Amino acid sequence: MKIIHTIKELREWRKTAGRVAFVPTMGNLHEGHLALVREARQRADHVVVSIFVNRLQFGQGEDFDKYPRTLQQDADKLSAEGVSVVFAPDEKELYPNVEQRYNVEPPYLQNELCGKFRPGHFRGVATVVCKLFNIVEPDVACFGKKDYQQLAIIKGLVEDLNINVEIVPVDTGRASDGLALSSRNQYLSEQERAEAPRLYRELRTIAEAIRNGNLVYAELENAAIQRLTDTGWSVDYVEVRHAGSLEIAHAGDKNLVVLAAARLGSTRLIDNIEIHL
Amino acid sequence: MKIIHTIKELREWRKTAGRVAFVPTMGNLHEGHLALVREARQRADHVVVSIFVNRLQFGQGEDFDKYPRTLQQDADKLSAEGVSVVFAPDEKELYPNVEQRYNVEPPYLQNELCGKFRPGHFRGVATVVCKLFNIVEPDVACFGKKDYQQLAIIKGLVEDLNINVEIVPVDTGRASDGLALSSRNQYLSEQERAEAPRLYRELRTIAEAIRNGNLVYAELENAAIQRLTDTGWSVDYVEVRHAGSLEIAHAGDKNLVVLAAARLGSTRLIDNIEIHL
Repeated sequence: MKIIHTIKELREWRKTAGRVAFVPTMGNLHEGHLALVREARQRADHVVVSIFVNRLQFGQGEDFDKYPRTLQQDADKLSAEGVSVVFAPDEKELYPNVEQRYNVEPPYLQNELCGKFRPGHFRGVATVVCKLFNIVEPDVACFGKKDYQQLAIIKGLVEDLNINVEIVPVDTGRASDGLALSSRNQYLSEQERAEAPRLYRELRTIAEAIRNGNLVYAELENAAIQRLTDTGWSVDYVEVRHAGSLEIAHAGDKNLVVLAAARLGSTRLIDNIEIHL
Repeated sequence: MKIIHTIKELREWRKTAGRVAFVPTMGNLHEGHLALVREARQRADHVVVSIFVNRLQFGQGEDFDKYPRTLQQDADKLSAEGVSVVFAPDEKELYPNVEQRYNVEPPYLQNELCGKFRPGHFRGVATVVCKLFNIVEPDVACFGKKDYQQLAIIKGLVEDLNINVEIVPVDTGRASDGLALSSRNQYLSEQERAEAPRLYRELRTIAEAIRNGNLVYAELENAAIQRLTDTGWSVDYVEVRHAGSLEIAHAGDKNLVVLAAARLGSTRLIDNIEIHL
C-alpha cells in the first residue's frame, strides 16, 4: 500500500491503475469506514482511500481543531483491507490559495435538516468531494448512508455536474446496541455512551408506527423529540422525509427516510432509517 | 467527423480516443473559433468541439432566443478543419431537471467588469464548462482571449477545483480593421460596423500611453469613455487591470490588461489588450 501526499504523485499513479474505487474519509477510521472499503474492494482493481480533515465543512465553534488525526493507525487498518493507495494531502496541497475561491453551491437542501444547524457545511462537502473526484478520477465511489443528507447531496452534484462516477451507498455500521458507528462516538462519556442508542430506538419506533399505518408524521416526530428531550438530549431535528430527494414527505409516500440529529452533552449525533412500504 | 448528441455516446467514443483537445462554443462559428480549433489540432490526437447555446449564461432580456443556431454550416466548417467530434447536445440532455440545482460559484470577480452588467453570467459559464469538462474529459482545452474575463474564471475554476485539464489561451482573431471577431458582429448595421473598430483603437491608445509611462489609469480610462460616448457608444466600462488575476491594477504593475465593453445600438461588444512592460 502506498501513502501518497501530493496530487501530482496521485495522478502519476492513477495513469496506469485501471478501474479505481474511491472512499473519501476524514480519517480516524472505524468499522463503518472499513465496511465502505470492503464494498469498494468488490468493485474495482484498486481502492483509493483519502484521509483529509476538510476545514471547509466545519463551522465556527465546531470540532475542526480537536478532530482526531490518526494517520498511522488508519494506514495500518487500510493496509490490512487490501487498499492500494491512501491519499493524505496536507491542507496546503488541497487549498494552496488559503481561501477556496470557486465553490460548488448545492441547492436549498443544503440549508435544511443538518444544514440548518451547520451553515456552509454542505457547500464545503460538495466542494471538497468535487475536488477529490477530479484528483482521483475514480470509476466508483462509496459513501455511507449514515450521512444520509451528504449522500443525497453528492448524488445530486454528480448528476447535475455530469461527473463520470458511480455512487454506491453503503448501509450504516452499528454497534451491537444499535448505535451508528461514528468518529464522534469517542467524545461520549460512559454515561452518554449508554444513553446514545436511544436515538436509533426512537427512529425505529417512528418507522414501525408508519409501517403500521400512522401517517401523521408531525405527531410521530414531536413525540420522539419530546422523549429525547425528557431523557437529556438536545434535539436539532427529527424529520420524516421523502427518501432520495429528501423533500418534505406526504402522507402516502412509499419511500421514506426518518432522519435525526441530537446532542448528548457537547457531542452531536446523527442517524436515520429508511422505510420502503 | 461524427456529430454526437448524447452524453452516453460521447463517453463511449471517449473511451478509446487517446489524447483529446476540446473547444467549447455556442456555435455560429467564425474565423476566431477556427483559430481555436487549429490550436487544438496541434495539441492532441482528436479535437472535440461542443456546440451548445447555454441558457444559464444569458440574463433576462439578453439574446438567448435570437442567438443564431447554425449547426449544419458549423459542422461543415469543423469537418474541413479535421475535427473528430462535434458534441451538440440539446437542452434536455444537459439540463434534464430544467433547473440546474448544483452550480459552480465563482468568487467576487464574477460581479466585476462584464459581471456587473450581466448578473449570473459567469456562474452560468463556470457551471456549463465544468459540466462539459466532466463529459468530454479533455486533456487540453482552448479558450479565446477575446473573452478575457471568462478565460480568467475558467483558469481559476480549473485550478481551484483541481480539474485535470490544461487551459490554452488563444489570441483574439480580428478583422483587417482591427475589430475583434464575434458572433455578435452580425447584429451590427452597416454604419455600426464601420464605427465598431473604434473600441480596439481606444484600447491601443491606452496601451500606448501606458507604455509611454502614463500611469494614471483612471485618467486614461475616462478619456476613452468620453471619446466613445461622444461618438455614439454606450459604454459599460473601460478598465486597466492586472493581467491574469484581473485584480485592480496599481501604478507600476508590469503585466496589465485593458478591458472594455460598450454598446453600439443594441449590440454589446467587448475587447481587450494585454500590456507586458
